[in-house]
Amino acid sequence: MSKELSIGLIGFGCVGSGLYEVLNKSELIEAKISKIVVKDRYKRRELEQNKFSFNVNDILEDDSINVVVELIDDSEKAFEIVKKALSSGKDVVSANKKMIAEHLEELLNLAESNDVSFLYEGAVAGSIPIIRNLEEYYNNDSLTSLEGIVNGTTNYILTKSNDGVGYKEALAQAQELGFAESNPSLDVDGFDSKYKLVILLKHAFGLTVQPKEIFNLGIRHISEQSVAYAKEKGYRIKLFSRAEKIGDTVVGFVAPHFIREDHFAYSVNNEFNAVILEGLFSDQQLFVGKGAGSHPTASAVLSDVSALKFDYKYEYRKTNINRTTQFSNEFFVKIYLESKYIELINEIPFYHVDELFQSDEVNYQTGWVKFSELITFDFNSRENISLVILPEELKESINSKKVANRALLESSYD
Amino acid sequence: MSKELSIGLIGFGCVGSGLYEVLNKSELIEAKISKIVVKDRYKRRELEQNKFSFNVNDILEDDSINVVVELIDDSEKAFEIVKKALSSGKDVVSANKKMIAEHLEELLNLAESNDVSFLYEGAVAGSIPIIRNLEEYYNNDSLTSLEGIVNGTTNYILTKSNDGVGYKEALAQAQELGFAESNPSLDVDGFDSKYKLVILLKHAFGLTVQPKEIFNLGIRHISEQSVAYAKEKGYRIKLFSRAEKIGDTVVGFVAPHFIREDHFAYSVNNEFNAVILEGLFSDQQLFVGKGAGSHPTASAVLSDVSALKFDYKYEYRKTNINRTTQFSNEFFVKIYLESKYIELINEIPFYHVDELFQSDEVNYQTGWVKFSELITFDFNSRENISLVILPEELKESINSKKVANRALLESSYD
Repeated sequence: MSKELSIGLIGFGCVGSGLYEVLNKSELIEAKISKIVVKDRYKRRELEQNKFSFNVNDILEDDSINVVVELIDDSEKAFEIVKKALSSGKDVVSANKKMIAEHLEELLNLAESNDVSFLYEGAVAGSIPIIRNLEEYYNNDSLTSLEGIVNGTTNYILTKSNDGVGYKEALAQAQELGFAESNPSLDVDGFDSKYKLVILLKHAFGLTVQPKEIFNLGIRHISEQSVAYAKEKGYRIKLFSRAEKIGDTVVGFVAPHFIREDHFAYSVNNEFNAVILEGLFSDQQLFVGKGAGSHPTASAVLSDVSALKFDYKYEYRKTNINRTTQFSNEFFVKIYLESKYIELINEIPFYHVDELFQSDEVNYQTGWVKFSELITFDFNSRENISLVILPEELKESINSKKVANRALLESSYD
Repeated sequence: MSKELSIGLIGFGCVGSGLYEVLNKSELIEAKISKIVVKDRYKRRELEQNKFSFNVNDILEDDSINVVVELIDDSEKAFEIVKKALSSGKDVVSANKKMIAEHLEELLNLAESNDVSFLYEGAVAGSIPIIRNLEEYYNNDSLTSLEGIVNGTTNYILTKSNDGVGYKEALAQAQELGFAESNPSLDVDGFDSKYKLVILLKHAFGLTVQPKEIFNLGIRHISEQSVAYAKEKGYRIKLFSRAEKIGDTVVGFVAPHFIREDHFAYSVNNEFNAVILEGLFSDQQLFVGKGAGSHPTASAVLSDVSALKFDYKYEYRKTNINRTTQFSNEFFVKIYLESKYIELINEIPFYHVDELFQSDEVNYQTGWVKFSELITFDFNSRENISLVILPEELKESINSKKVANRALLESSYD
């Protein structure tokens, strides 16, 4: 009934060493790590040197190893390793969201044609079993929306900035605590959250979407004024990976959101992750857990390894159910847009303006915009503009035309 | 790959009619309700009379029906129905926690020997997929504790009482909203929470425990003074179904708990349910969703029906892993005990007294007690004593002896 597992572990950083500890120090599940391959021969490690090897082929070409656990940073190298492992009939567990998001379809096809399992619960929201739940429990077409706080670093920084800590100091703290990516842009510009959203879109709605089709705005340019606006209105700012059915389409994006106090995500702070699902009949479901760090991610990897003992595979049932559903950026969203320079705000076409505030120091405007138009502006690289989504439902259409000529005051831009 | 389901639905109350709507009005999953059996021939229903039958054998003896969904109130009648259905080779979905808790072992054996599925996600915490997660995701021996708010009625009443609404009024509101059991004692005395705990103990720790072995104290006798004490300390009162590994044993009980503001359960209010799991490596996981009402429970039943299409069965893996683990009531717990009558407090042996307050109006005492001694007192039927668990870890042993003679003031009891 249960299979003997002989594991080749590739990568022995934060998560890899956590897994080793979880697997070998405890006796929770019967699976042994037969080989560990690392890149750096001279790095000091807690284990004896003779446990390590430095060539991935020592694992990939070893027929006695039937499971490859890939936990390295470099997504392109990881892709080569995983392809080779799947092709040679080994089950693979990975937590490399970038690799999975970028090559999902190819990897799934490879796993299917070799009749092996490719599991990656650890790639999304750390210890929260969200992929398994989307696969197994929400295996029908009843889900209508998904909102996720899936990046611990940015949630930590946003929590601190709510307490008055500056952005740079908070980022440094997150790095010190070990849950920031080595390249901070992946976290703070929302790329990490986007890769995870790609995976969630596949398991929640059956859609394969390329990362480049999805808009991601991070938290780098959230201004003090935006934080003050949140405080004034009783909101908190959270970076959401969000997907939702609108009409016959599914929309999805990553952006900072103002969150009301009565929203489930409001009290999900620090490095915690959360996913909120809404279904036709089940109402809202909230899942919360630690999303970053050695043990939480290792525990998700452990659950995947544990499932391999029973030959578990993802079934991707919704891919077949939703064959006609398309991913789309065509919808309307209510935003808060703020800048020192009124011209920058005026570059964005609004369809309805709710609030307009202008002063020498700061200008902001709230109202409805067409998302497909909004995302033609590259907000991540524009320092002087702060965009936050307001807590209103997304709409398929709205009853008003583009608003022209909104600049009431003379600009301070020169 | 997927099985044709022909469903016989027994019971057409709140959940049954919700399921009918969910299944037949939507086209989420392919499964048809072939027959509906109800008890009362003359009750007016939203469906035409000819859809209904009044004899359970019309379903149980119909070979074309391969799934029985049992959603009646009467647990003994339900037991007979489910036994007969399983014995005749039909898969069964039930949400009858009392029946399942009281007859779990017999029903599992029957399902196993007839090679059919017996699923009951709807029996615990409504729309939260807790049993499925305990079965599939936490399928190894890593869980250390479980705390659940699994009764919507009492959580609703406690939330209201926190806002100053009286017990009777809040109960009447809960009944009006349709999420109170027909017999309120099942809710307010913690029996419903206990039946659910029995099921959780099986899936979380692999233990089969009889309901009568488990202590349950409800919320009926929580005094205004206890609510005031909670406010003063910044606590909220929640009714917890709780299970935990202590040494080589697993302990479990149902009782009101004071909850700190930083606890996940603090902001789970009204009819929402929550389950908090703690594992060796995954840290805390929180699941929140609506635990009562027509649609949330029906959506859990729907997910079970949907899983039957793929011949899903619970595996009860932990029953085998934890063969030597015993259920126990031997541990120490810190409590708040309050009464108008000091003699009542003095009946309970304490091992350490932390606080002692006495006045003409009210007396209370906090400190450590031995749980196996505490539960010899029948708190549910003692009107004048209010017991709430304090937010301290349970302990296997403590370093002090029984405290004698604690009454400092003369009693007002006569």
